[in-house]
Amino acid sequence: MDSEIISRLKEAVGSDYVITDEEKARPFLIDWTKRFRGRAVVVRPGSTEEVSRVMAIAYDTRTPVVPQSGGTTLVGGSIPDDSGRAILLSLGRMNKVEEIDTGNDTVTVQAGLILEQLHRAVEEKGRFFPLSFGAQGSAQIGGALATNAGGTAVLRYGNMRDLCLGLEVVLPDGRVMTALRGLRKDNTGYDLKQLFIGSEGTLGVITRAVLKLFPIPRGRQTALVGIPDLESSVKLLDRVKAAAGSELTGFELIQRKCIERVAEQLPGVELPGPVDDCPWWILAELSSQAEQGASLEAILAEAFEAGEVANAYLAQSLSDSEAFWRIRESIPEADASVGNNLHNDVSLKISLIPEFLEVTVKRLYEAYPWLDPSLYGHLGDGNIHFNIGSIPSNLAFENEEGIRRITYEEVVKRNGSISAEHGIGQLKRGHFLALKDPLELEIMERISRAIDPRGIMNPGKLLADRKD
Amino acid sequence: MDSEIISRLKEAVGSDYVITDEEKARPFLIDWTKRFRGRAVVVRPGSTEEVSRVMAIAYDTRTPVVPQSGGTTLVGGSIPDDSGRAILLSLGRMNKVEEIDTGNDTVTVQAGLILEQLHRAVEEKGRFFPLSFGAQGSAQIGGALATNAGGTAVLRYGNMRDLCLGLEVVLPDGRVMTALRGLRKDNTGYDLKQLFIGSEGTLGVITRAVLKLFPIPRGRQTALVGIPDLESSVKLLDRVKAAAGSELTGFELIQRKCIERVAEQLPGVELPGPVDDCPWWILAELSSQAEQGASLEAILAEAFEAGEVANAYLAQSLSDSEAFWRIRESIPEADASVGNNLHNDVSLKISLIPEFLEVTVKRLYEAYPWLDPSLYGHLGDGNIHFNIGSIPSNLAFENEEGIRRITYEEVVKRNGSISAEHGIGQLKRGHFLALKDPLELEIMERISRAIDPRGIMNPGKLLADRKD
Repeated sequence: MDSEIISRLKEAVGSDYVITDEEKARPFLIDWTKRFRGRAVVVRPGSTEEVSRVMAIAYDTRTPVVPQSGGTTLVGGSIPDDSGRAILLSLGRMNKVEEIDTGNDTVTVQAGLILEQLHRAVEEKGRFFPLSFGAQGSAQIGGALATNAGGTAVLRYGNMRDLCLGLEVVLPDGRVMTALRGLRKDNTGYDLKQLFIGSEGTLGVITRAVLKLFPIPRGRQTALVGIPDLESSVKLLDRVKAAAGSELTGFELIQRKCIERVAEQLPGVELPGPVDDCPWWILAELSSQAEQGASLEAILAEAFEAGEVANAYLAQSLSDSEAFWRIRESIPEADASVGNNLHNDVSLKISLIPEFLEVTVKRLYEAYPWLDPSLYGHLGDGNIHFNIGSIPSNLAFENEEGIRRITYEEVVKRNGSISAEHGIGQLKRGHFLALKDPLELEIMERISRAIDPRGIMNPGKLLADRKD
Repeated sequence: MDSEIISRLKEAVGSDYVITDEEKARPFLIDWTKRFRGRAVVVRPGSTEEVSRVMAIAYDTRTPVVPQSGGTTLVGGSIPDDSGRAILLSLGRMNKVEEIDTGNDTVTVQAGLILEQLHRAVEEKGRFFPLSFGAQGSAQIGGALATNAGGTAVLRYGNMRDLCLGLEVVLPDGRVMTALRGLRKDNTGYDLKQLFIGSEGTLGVITRAVLKLFPIPRGRQTALVGIPDLESSVKLLDRVKAAAGSELTGFELIQRKCIERVAEQLPGVELPGPVDDCPWWILAELSSQAEQGASLEAILAEAFEAGEVANAYLAQSLSDSEAFWRIRESIPEADASVGNNLHNDVSLKISLIPEFLEVTVKRLYEAYPWLDPSLYGHLGDGNIHFNIGSIPSNLAFENEEGIRRITYEEVVKRNGSISAEHGIGQLKRGHFLALKDPLELEIMERISRAIDPRGIMNPGKLLADRKD
């Protein structure tokens, strides 16, 4: 990078916060899956004002900017290319909880705040922020917004888009759009924050946000439920929704083999009993504010009578609940211990999932008789982690393109999504550009040009390279 | 309009559905508040394909297009100007429920479907569509989406934006963007439907939608609660949310005078008892799927101990509940019977509402000692119908600009919204353009130009006239 740009950046944020030393910059320039690496000057602004100055310099000099918060994306969305031309804009110093408003049930935060620290801060005020996922000890709010993060509480509370009431964004030219109103209703023109949420850093830099808070849930009922076949999963979901409504907070589908593998590979994780009598299992959870809500036991008894349920373990204590969730959350680790697999993160209309799973697995077995799928996911959201491995695992990775092609073909045929919650970034860009409706891609590109006319925001991610 | 354009339109949709006769066109060209009138050729397509043909003709000939569904907007959003140059595109013939998917809890509808007919169709399948407001017997889904409609169930279920999973939109050049995926999670690029929802017909024509469905709620508890002062309203809301969580479905703030006026003016509406002991009242409702949920009576007893509640009438039956809601819903009619008032539809952070009401009413009284405000609204959403009348009512209307200026100044000072749910249209366009952040307006205009480069979509509404 031009030394004049570097000295302007140092003037903008202070020379301590412009990192050109390769050794010191390295942690910012490799993603945590170790698949993506790049080169860039790392700039660490401490305020919106400083982000604004950095963007004005980038705009003026047509320097690409890659925004980065926690860096826990699985798709290489916050890693620059290896040209060394880009600014890696790290938001991590902007990590404050600015205001918790219990009357409005909102919190105003800076983009670099770590998700787990937000959880703690609002819990001290008797409030609950529901976004939750494995990487919450590292992931930051700005990135969670930029990727519209999902996680385990989407069924009840929605994803990051649903949890955000206002944003402050620094535009590509350095001007600051402050729309931190924190209103639940506001029909004054286009809802601009919706554009930036989920745009993967390609339209501007999110610097602050107003987020919704909720009361801390009290009652909690959890069960691990064996079902006779895949069709029963959708019938049971329907039944639980009708009986429990918004108290339903978790409904995870798990292939029997995944549970057995957890028990085999991770001796610390205990099963509540044998699971070999059912091919598929459901981890269901209700939670409510009321002392007495719907009874999960009674709902399951009715489902048993109707033949939708063949076996069920009900948690008798909070520690039982946690043990059941530990089984679900340990599946990736158990899979990794036998050689890992190709991760897919697809979504479909819930009603199509049983048929999708049967047809796609059958097609894959016909092409690759040696494969070893690991199937589980958030059935209540229509989101399946359709992971395909093999033993030994190299067979699956050597056939990555063919396996993904068959999987995505079946997803697209059913109007599904090839990325339910992880985003596109670098990893899925080729498939995304090939499979997405060309008219939708054209409109995305028009919006990108309207907001980022010089094309400096996170190039090489999500959208195609501009041809001008 | 040029006769060649008219004959092309007749070819596109059939000559029966192109109305040039002024008498026959009139019902489409006056809004139901009788405040806005215009002139246009009325075109009534019967399919997406026909909408596409009409838009292609409009694009080719640079003819303005004003989309219209139920025509129940309060702000003149679907009425053309009086130049006679425009096409009034009425969606009313496209009124089908295409598919109810109980497994996915979604319904696919055409844009001209009347809201009340949607309610009935999904109830027959054991499902509930929560959007509900006074005009639901005329309002159509396309308009409800284009204006991001709100209503009485927003607190629990969100507004139209939250209820929509997919859209089909005919773009200004006639191409059809079909994004009817019905997925609850989909992070593949910008969420384009968010742009069209709430854009008031300025970006494209919504022709079909996939909407979320819910189980039909069972238990219902309603109370009319007297509070000692405005501050108690926010404390009580906080308490009910903590105790009942998502079971809280209604929390309406009502000035005592509004209730008394209903009783005086509308002899058919009965009060459950005297209301003169409290200056403000809350209509609170819980509903749940479970047989036993949170107890509203127990929550109110605790609030009484804490001094947040001074009196309360608990509904003892479904007909009591309905009688309580009838009081709330009769306020506009009672106001109208004493001469009506200037309607304002503002929103603020909930925590700011008590102070906003006190300060703004005081300022207004200082300027206009004769005024007679009628204050009520969806406190749980931060949305107040801040209506200002006078007796006789002409005094308020003669001072419209001054009254609105003071009101909006106080709203904007607190980062609130001058249109919580009714939109901008023609009525509020001047205030909107004067008060909205110029940078946000600039981005809206850039988006408008990116999607509608020829500026043919609903000109004269929402955004400023283009200067080119």
